[in-house]
Amino acid sequence: MGFHVDSEAGRLRRVILHRPDLELKRLTPTNRDDLLFDDVLWVRRARQEHDGFADVLRDRGVEVHLFGDLLAESLEIPAARAFVLDRTFHEKEYGPLAADHLRAVFEEMSGAELAEALVGGMTKREYLERHPEPVSVRFHVMDLDDFLVAPLPNHLFTRDTSAWIYDGVSINAMRWPARQRETIHFEAIYHHHPLFARPSGAPGVQDPGSPDPGAPGGRGFHVWSEGQGAYPSTIEGGDVLVIGNGAVLIGMSERTTPQAVEMLAQGLFAAGSARTIVALDMPKKRALMHLDTVMTMVDGDTFTQYAGLGMLRSYTIEPGAAESELKVTDHPPEHMHRAIAAALGLDGIRVLTATQDVHAAEREQWDDGCNVLAVEPGVVIAYERNVTTNTHLRKRGIEVITIPGSELGRGRGGPRCMSCPVERDAV
Amino acid sequence: MGFHVDSEAGRLRRVILHRPDLELKRLTPTNRDDLLFDDVLWVRRARQEHDGFADVLRDRGVEVHLFGDLLAESLEIPAARAFVLDRTFHEKEYGPLAADHLRAVFEEMSGAELAEALVGGMTKREYLERHPEPVSVRFHVMDLDDFLVAPLPNHLFTRDTSAWIYDGVSINAMRWPARQRETIHFEAIYHHHPLFARPSGAPGVQDPGSPDPGAPGGRGFHVWSEGQGAYPSTIEGGDVLVIGNGAVLIGMSERTTPQAVEMLAQGLFAAGSARTIVALDMPKKRALMHLDTVMTMVDGDTFTQYAGLGMLRSYTIEPGAAESELKVTDHPPEHMHRAIAAALGLDGIRVLTATQDVHAAEREQWDDGCNVLAVEPGVVIAYERNVTTNTHLRKRGIEVITIPGSELGRGRGGPRCMSCPVERDAV
Amino acid sequence: MGFHVDSEAGRLRRVILHRPDLELKRLTPTNRDDLLFDDVLWVRRARQEHDGFADVLRDRGVEVHLFGDLLAESLEIPAARAFVLDRTFHEKEYGPLAADHLRAVFEEMSGAELAEALVGGMTKREYLERHPEPVSVRFHVMDLDDFLVAPLPNHLFTRDTSAWIYDGVSINAMRWPARQRETIHFEAIYHHHPLFARPSGAPGVQDPGSPDPGAPGGRGFHVWSEGQGAYPSTIEGGDVLVIGNGAVLIGMSERTTPQAVEMLAQGLFAAGSARTIVALDMPKKRALMHLDTVMTMVDGDTFTQYAGLGMLRSYTIEPGAAESELKVTDHPPEHMHRAIAAALGLDGIRVLTATQDVHAAEREQWDDGCNVLAVEPGVVIAYERNVTTNTHLRKRGIEVITIPGSELGRGRGGPRCMSCPVERDAV
Amino acid sequence: MGFHVDSEAGRLRRVILHRPDLELKRLTPTNRDDLLFDDVLWVRRARQEHDGFADVLRDRGVEVHLFGDLLAESLEIPAARAFVLDRTFHEKEYGPLAADHLRAVFEEMSGAELAEALVGGMTKREYLERHPEPVSVRFHVMDLDDFLVAPLPNHLFTRDTSAWIYDGVSINAMRWPARQRETIHFEAIYHHHPLFARPSGAPGVQDPGSPDPGAPGGRGFHVWSEGQGAYPSTIEGGDVLVIGNGAVLIGMSERTTPQAVEMLAQGLFAAGSARTIVALDMPKKRALMHLDTVMTMVDGDTFTQYAGLGMLRSYTIEPGAAESELKVTDHPPEHMHRAIAAALGLDGIRVLTATQDVHAAEREQWDDGCNVLAVEPGVVIAYERNVTTNTHLRKRGIEVITIPGSELGRGRGGPRCMSCPVERDAV
Repeated sequence: MGFHVDSEAGRLRRVILHRPDLELKRLTPTNRDDLLFDDVLWVRRARQEHDGFADVLRDRGVEVHLFGDLLAESLEIPAARAFVLDRTFHEKEYGPLAADHLRAVFEEMSGAELAEALVGGMTKREYLERHPEPVSVRFHVMDLDDFLVAPLPNHLFTRDTSAWIYDGVSINAMRWPARQRETIHFEAIYHHHPLFARPSGAPGVQDPGSPDPGAPGGRGFHVWSEGQGAYPSTIEGGDVLVIGNGAVLIGMSERTTPQAVEMLAQGLFAAGSARTIVALDMPKKRALMHLDTVMTMVDGDTFTQYAGLGMLRSYTIEPGAAESELKVTDHPPEHMHRAIAAALGLDGIRVLTATQDVHAAEREQWDDGCNVLAVEPGVVIAYERNVTTNTHLRKRGIEVITIPGSELGRGRGGPRCMSCPVERDAV
Repeated sequence: MGFHVDSEAGRLRRVILHRPDLELKRLTPTNRDDLLFDDVLWVRRARQEHDGFADVLRDRGVEVHLFGDLLAESLEIPAARAFVLDRTFHEKEYGPLAADHLRAVFEEMSGAELAEALVGGMTKREYLERHPEPVSVRFHVMDLDDFLVAPLPNHLFTRDTSAWIYDGVSINAMRWPARQRETIHFEAIYHHHPLFARPSGAPGVQDPGSPDPGAPGGRGFHVWSEGQGAYPSTIEGGDVLVIGNGAVLIGMSERTTPQAVEMLAQGLFAAGSARTIVALDMPKKRALMHLDTVMTMVDGDTFTQYAGLGMLRSYTIEPGAAESELKVTDHPPEHMHRAIAAALGLDGIRVLTATQDVHAAEREQWDDGCNVLAVEPGVVIAYERNVTTNTHLRKRGIEVITIPGSELGRGRGGPRCMSCPVERDAV
Repeated sequence: MGFHVDSEAGRLRRVILHRPDLELKRLTPTNRDDLLFDDVLWVRRARQEHDGFADVLRDRGVEVHLFGDLLAESLEIPAARAFVLDRTFHEKEYGPLAADHLRAVFEEMSGAELAEALVGGMTKREYLERHPEPVSVRFHVMDLDDFLVAPLPNHLFTRDTSAWIYDGVSINAMRWPARQRETIHFEAIYHHHPLFARPSGAPGVQDPGSPDPGAPGGRGFHVWSEGQGAYPSTIEGGDVLVIGNGAVLIGMSERTTPQAVEMLAQGLFAAGSARTIVALDMPKKRALMHLDTVMTMVDGDTFTQYAGLGMLRSYTIEPGAAESELKVTDHPPEHMHRAIAAALGLDGIRVLTATQDVHAAEREQWDDGCNVLAVEPGVVIAYERNVTTNTHLRKRGIEVITIPGSELGRGRGGPRCMSCPVERDAV
Repeated sequence: MGFHVDSEAGRLRRVILHRPDLELKRLTPTNRDDLLFDDVLWVRRARQEHDGFADVLRDRGVEVHLFGDLLAESLEIPAARAFVLDRTFHEKEYGPLAADHLRAVFEEMSGAELAEALVGGMTKREYLERHPEPVSVRFHVMDLDDFLVAPLPNHLFTRDTSAWIYDGVSINAMRWPARQRETIHFEAIYHHHPLFARPSGAPGVQDPGSPDPGAPGGRGFHVWSEGQGAYPSTIEGGDVLVIGNGAVLIGMSERTTPQAVEMLAQGLFAAGSARTIVALDMPKKRALMHLDTVMTMVDGDTFTQYAGLGMLRSYTIEPGAAESELKVTDHPPEHMHRAIAAALGLDGIRVLTATQDVHAAEREQWDDGCNVLAVEPGVVIAYERNVTTNTHLRKRGIEVITIPGSELGRGRGGPRCMSCPVERDAV
């Protein structure tokens, strides 16, 4: 009852997905690098594939919330709408001459229209088809097909922007500009959507600017971190594995910083929600952008791991002697698995890595071979294309439900990346 | 009866395709740029898509020759095998210590095995699983997963390596190293495969090193240019449109040089096989790598053209006063279509370009929206994903047969790129 | 008496320079791109060249303040020291475990030591030679030669970080991370150094967080904008030319945004300090990073301009009907010079551009041929190497004083970039 | 008497340098990457620095031949001129319509004019100022400032294009297109210039196309390899160290291939000119482009080595049992110095590496700190800027003569790179 994620592989009960739409049609060969995609997508096919993914989850008894619906519904609430518009149409971005003008125009839209414009973006041309041009140097210098509101194609990867860790959520400061506006949308949802907020008028709904974001308040859940304001202390959900037993495994990657790990540790330990964090020192490169692109959990003691990852230096972080102090223990690379096992209270963990030549292994990692989503212990959803990895998991007793990912995979994200569990049991 | 291509849109009778195989499995995120691909492919799916493409052609009465079969069959012929092995395993590439050793090992293979190794490539590890290691610095310094024989994934695009122009074929010098070995394979096929060569023992089979490559010899067709030796005078089939009426339209692109156009003109005019070439001065960039990625012919007077191409400077090349002289007429960009029409003996041409915003147009060009293959006048094969372009063509009376290209398209090539017509009627 | 800059070419009286030091020794082939340099410098030679530059200025009666001295002296003042340390050693950057620890260590340093560490940077190895290691994941994951405090080699270009415009200064939000910490240092100097601040204890010294940054307060000068907090509304001094007659010419470049221009216009007009801004729509690329790399003013009506710049779209911004409103007039590219002349109240301006082939012109622009610093009307300091441009100016009656720039020029900045005038007369 | 190079550090007697000229003025920010330079140079200053370098050599009794003179003199000889023009103005590059026309125009020039045009390049504009335009598509499509003849700025580095090894010279196949035409010029010089060729009319002058290039013929020296025709078996002189005792040390780098090493070994061993080659497996990256950028020899048993190089896998190559066979012995990285010592017949070698932090070491390597030229045992010429390395050498007893390299160094080459010894004693 309520929102909490107690493991990576326990029964999954509720999840937020985002159905691909206009924002993915915005990708072009020219802008794809800035927008963090490797190729343009065939959106109609991507949507079919994504619908299939949602159906598989529903068939398994998982309740699926669509991010687009949550955002549109939130934007019908005046406080949420004001929160989002204030942060989107500010003069530092649009200049003093246009900011208020634009804000007023977008204020007139319905929640659904506004959600589409904020996520799908809007070009100057599209704007001018329906609205008058403001007197504004900032607006004048734009070309007609420039984006007045940039699209957010990475909303597809709901895993990253917010991450539930035991009985609270981290609404993350994102590493790259292409994703930073996503966070505003999740803040609006978690603070204002009826699914997450207390009944209207009830006391205790926490203010986004609260000095004590970790307090559960009236909502019944903690907020471990709160928005883009924490930048450059960034963290993204793809690097966070709630491995159970009060432990969290975090990859310090291109996108997740050690300082964010320290801050999260302080919050989790103060609330008593966790008692150990194992932090891995990942290579800082795009191909391994998040820990879950190279390592995910498929059962209470079992991980799948990319052959090319190797062993990494790791750090065990525990509560220190005094309040808000931390104890940090370094481990050499060869003790990585041992450190994870210790955090789980186990003698060892089982790590499944298919034997392939380096080219084939690199291909399957690229195609999210390790990025599987467990729906219950030992049952995972994976892309059909990664035959070698899937076969290997099956031979080791894991049930693998496959979905096609011919288009979805072009953003370098698999079933785990595309899902934000908000309720999941312990194993 | 015999090989000839008299138009871009007349009835297509015979074509060479290449069914995707091992060579595409070699693509990885690391090597894809060097191998000229934008993303790795899901090969099983790509092969299904390609089989569907071949079936559509057969349904339309087109005879389909598979490149892999032609090569394997050619390699059973000792002269063809020697021709290929001599050019593949030479000491400038493998060093004096290993070249003969390797050549001897590959000499032992069957035609099919050899074709697979030459096209699909072979790593040092794969080699050592079955063969002894030579004493060779060149061989020693390789890592186990380095390619001893590099794969040739661009064989998929049979259009480029050889191009039939009226009653002869240009076996092309390719621009980039990733494709230069392809040419050897087509030389072997055209000179030795029974389909193209005269009956064994008959006089007149032309020698590859013939001083008069344009002569039809016993084969009944001309050879307009002959192999990689012409480098840096490169030309690729994707830039060559046989538009009919004795005219050829050629894009001078990143990969096709003006000097190659001049040489081709001399050959075509000397044989009386063509009487006009219109050469377009294309932007030299990868996105517009070949003319047929931005402009193809769908009927005797009708072209489809990418909105973002704009108008280009063009040159009409005709026979000059004296033998081997040429007459060159420059045209400003705005006369591009007029110059093409004049070459066709028409008052004007019809150019079909769908109206889209620049982002959408750029996407469809990227996804080969213009790269359609006509099977008869007014009937073309196109990728299903390019809905706007396909709908536009249909509204203008063109019949569009769609095929899926979710995977095939990752190499930036559509139905025209993936086909090498060897027999096609005039319109 | 007091600080003001009333022109680009009037008599120069006082200027801030930065003598090259440790921070430039930090440049390596690996980090130079991130640090915005094209090559590493021979620092001893660069310092000799810079000393020569300062001597030329002093010989011309210009008082030279060295940034390093100003910073060191400011850091002896507790409030300035606290201001800088608070913004440098915060937990979002260093994590909660190390931030206070590091701040305390640096708090112990003298002003000169601290200034050297903040500008020259410090590696983890250098830190550990003298100080104990904190318990901190953020600190542990660093390699020994990683920078604990990043060096700021672009302090060399004092022009950009703060820019005096008539009777006030804009302390700029910088575009790229490599320069953003520079702004903190100039805030400390302008708010706390005795040269700029009122006598200690006197009322009216403005607080950096003042809601009315434009008010002159007790200091006798306005502050047009205030620090990195304005990001992404960035502006850099190299794009700002105080052309006189109450007019300002601003390049909207890779680094200077239209929204910042609008904000600056509001401030200048509200204070009555200026009455026209002409904003140029510059190409957004590194080679033309600032307006003064392609166009500077050498006399009251005379500019030097790079041949490859061409004519640009421009916008005249003037006060609007109501308070804080602006009037914006667009001009097509061909009217660029006319718009500048109109702002100066002239019929036309004189633009000096040497005739060269495109290669030579590109070279001299790259070597800062246009980046001259006027010391009085018609007298400029230029790099010796740009012979063609210098000769051209001389033939047109401009006195050109040359300085060597073999090393200094590697950062792509000339005499104007390396100087921040704080007192200059009108022409 | 005659040409031979018997060591790296024995008394240097004769050397070929190239005085910087027009070709370096051609460098621009746009073309510098393709032309393998990191920044544009101030040519007048570079020439002064180079003149100083030549003077230091002359002061030490070294006879300096200037490449520009050798080329101009060679081009006065009809056979040499024909050799060069045939290879420069061929139809594969210029097209059949322009090749003969251009060749005829250049044929009219004096040797000095022709040498300047071939090395300094010529734009289409420069050509048209003095010569008529040919009818040619290839010529028409060029822009006025495009290079009709590309400049060869890397002729500065005479070390690479030809390399003397004991009693013969390797006229090298170069790795990158920007340098491949250099080889033609050295072929013309070595085969036709009176300095190297036998007296006119005498028997035995070797033909460039001779099937036995290693034979000394009438010239009194061997030719170990001959021209660009060996491509892709490339080798460059910067990777070749003639360490003495019949041994050669070769770096297999980005530019020098193992197959070229094997071929060279066969030639040297067959002639009895050497008896051991030690080949190092270098990292393949531009910063370490040649072995002599990270390791050179300063005395008979002493090397200077870049701290960041580490130890490398090495291979000892010796004559095999039968003619043209080779014996190859692999060594693990830690035995690199031991393998070199063994080839020298020594128990060990002395390796001088200054202790610096990684940033400073990387800077000095970049600035050619290790690229010193010995003029006699224990006496080297070095760039003045590399103070740490130079001081280290001096403390170890090496005499270091410094020259300025503020401009010269921008091409990433030091004194060794800029010199081609043609006569040097053994140590």
